[in-house]
Amino acid sequence: MQRFSSVSRRFMSSKVSSFKSLVYSSHDAQDCTKVLTLHTYKAKGESEKSILLRTLAFPINPSDINQLEGVYPSKPEKVMDYGTEKPSAIAGNEGVFEVVDVPDSVDGLQKGDMVIPLQANFGTWTNYRTCEDPSQLVKVQGIDLITAATIAVNGCTAYQLVNNYVDWDQNGNDWLIQNAGTSSVSKIVTQVAKARGIKTLSVIRDRENFDEVASQLENELGATKVISESNNNDKLFAKEVLPKILGPDARVKLALNSVGGKSSASIARKLSPDATMLTYGGMSKMPVTLPTSLLIFKNLKCLGFWITQNSVRDPASKRKTIEEVSKLYAEGKIVSPANDVRILEWDTNKASDDEVLSLIKEGITHKGKKNVVVLKW
Amino acid sequence: MQRFSSVSRRFMSSKVSSFKSLVYSSHDAQDCTKVLTLHTYKAKGESEKSILLRTLAFPINPSDINQLEGVYPSKPEKVMDYGTEKPSAIAGNEGVFEVVDVPDSVDGLQKGDMVIPLQANFGTWTNYRTCEDPSQLVKVQGIDLITAATIAVNGCTAYQLVNNYVDWDQNGNDWLIQNAGTSSVSKIVTQVAKARGIKTLSVIRDRENFDEVASQLENELGATKVISESNNNDKLFAKEVLPKILGPDARVKLALNSVGGKSSASIARKLSPDATMLTYGGMSKMPVTLPTSLLIFKNLKCLGFWITQNSVRDPASKRKTIEEVSKLYAEGKIVSPANDVRILEWDTNKASDDEVLSLIKEGITHKGKKNVVVLKW
Repeated sequence: MQRFSSVSRRFMSSKVSSFKSLVYSSHDAQDCTKVLTLHTYKAKGESEKSILLRTLAFPINPSDINQLEGVYPSKPEKVMDYGTEKPSAIAGNEGVFEVVDVPDSVDGLQKGDMVIPLQANFGTWTNYRTCEDPSQLVKVQGIDLITAATIAVNGCTAYQLVNNYVDWDQNGNDWLIQNAGTSSVSKIVTQVAKARGIKTLSVIRDRENFDEVASQLENELGATKVISESNNNDKLFAKEVLPKILGPDARVKLALNSVGGKSSASIARKLSPDATMLTYGGMSKMPVTLPTSLLIFKNLKCLGFWITQNSVRDPASKRKTIEEVSKLYAEGKIVSPANDVRILEWDTNKASDDEVLSLIKEGITHKGKKNVVVLKW
Repeated sequence: MQRFSSVSRRFMSSKVSSFKSLVYSSHDAQDCTKVLTLHTYKAKGESEKSILLRTLAFPINPSDINQLEGVYPSKPEKVMDYGTEKPSAIAGNEGVFEVVDVPDSVDGLQKGDMVIPLQANFGTWTNYRTCEDPSQLVKVQGIDLITAATIAVNGCTAYQLVNNYVDWDQNGNDWLIQNAGTSSVSKIVTQVAKARGIKTLSVIRDRENFDEVASQLENELGATKVISESNNNDKLFAKEVLPKILGPDARVKLALNSVGGKSSASIARKLSPDATMLTYGGMSKMPVTLPTSLLIFKNLKCLGFWITQNSVRDPASKRKTIEEVSKLYAEGKIVSPANDVRILEWDTNKASDDEVLSLIKEGITHKGKKNVVVLKW
């Protein structure tokens, strides 16, 4: 395997001797941390077209974990490119890199630029990465590291959910309703909607500090109104309280469902005729439930949303979405998720292989806030 | 109310002295037969534009009954046009009429023509009817009375379900799946699909004479394959038997759901990526249930279908549909429903008012085959 045996002269000049990547060659649905190893290898990259990237940060997303478990429908090809014994893939679908070395032939990219992958399955859980095809990278600017590391999934999902399915009127009467109103995506949805003049009705789970959480979403992120799941499921609430919240001329044109089950039926019931419900998650593990009459008599449209597939279908739109969302972040229209994540530090100068692997495994198993691994150089 | 007090001279020349209509001014969700009366009145129709129609036959559809119960979202306006004490509507949404008298100014219609209403809420449970607007009538020809009386709902529903939502390939690999495979609409769907070269997988309830019913649907109507609901819900069947039925290159592009609940989830699971599920009924009274993964990862589209609303939205398409379905019946591509209905005879020369009302009430309460009232003149 000649091409793996030496590091290219160009990369040598960047003083990069070897790569360390979190790789897997098999899956384990029970405990996916078992299949991960930190693999050290000499990089290919002898091609004159190779762009050398240094990783700055990557999140540990549910989809990354589902890929390791072998239960996610999108997955990277397992290859022999990294000198592993068995065909392997590098874990991780999104992340942010710094351009370390770029051939003169590549337009629009310079050393020091911050880039993210255009598509999923790039393999981001690594210290270095090469890329032969500059069209697979999107330059980002004006946003912080954590935003950049998470914009391709959560940011783009939220933006396309709000913007790609409904003709919104700017008359102050157009609403969207969403469940799981405290999720990362929902919070961005709230802000994207507010920036467009669309009102949001956010449903959140009943909790002891409901008022506190509701005020935060309303006052800090601009949710028009936050209600509890028990309100969402209450027919009397729908009949007597909801109309006063929405106002007489309201049109609830979009429901965003990431929960399923009863919650999905209840947000669907609040839609106006001819509205759309987009399902992009199923936290309750219950199927989407839709009263038949809503489909037939209200002409409800029920669709799925998957940013991964949308990006493959229409890469240009994904690129445009990244630009638009970056602009909203840069303008302060969306609050950075930086304070809402748990940072795990990978010190590339000090951490042993065992320490790095432990760090990642800890991030996989930790429940609560989203884990983002930040590499210290 | 001068205009109700006399019958027009034109109608007098047709020897029509009075009309008898099944009318209602209120609703009863428990026993809707209570609200129906047979009302005798002198017809308006002094307008020079009035077309006089004599009723030949009308079905008693579930939607007619739901209207009487007050639980159907589409309903006729209640008016004082018939000389009733309270504002009233004539029952019945579809039926077939013979033109008895038509002004010279109306193009395309002649005495003796067979016509059906273009839209629902026409008021068809009557012996005579006037129509001031010829654009609300569609001339039908080449089909029998029972077909004509039922084509506007069942025939048009089946035709539009098959034809209006999917780009079908004519390569023999395109399938649709439907539940309630023995329903009137499903049987027409089967034949419309066969005429277009689309294969059908029909799911029917488990029953003692399953083989007999399945062969009838396959041999007489052209269903490609009939399976039971227990097969439909069986994962092993889906994995091992179904692929052999469908063949290696099959694309199941459309699911037609009129059941809901588990059955809807099971037919949805058999769809190919990017397929559509149309819901047009909910016999099980259970909501439509859709596994979240089908929406997100298979990009399934779940829509409702309601011929009533479709016809209001696009009257030209409804007219075209009636023509196309009539052609299929006339060519023998669809078997007449005449042998599949229960005929109730209204002898207009002999039946007393009480007898007519009893006949209709009997039709409303009878379970089993669709009831069609045929008027004997």
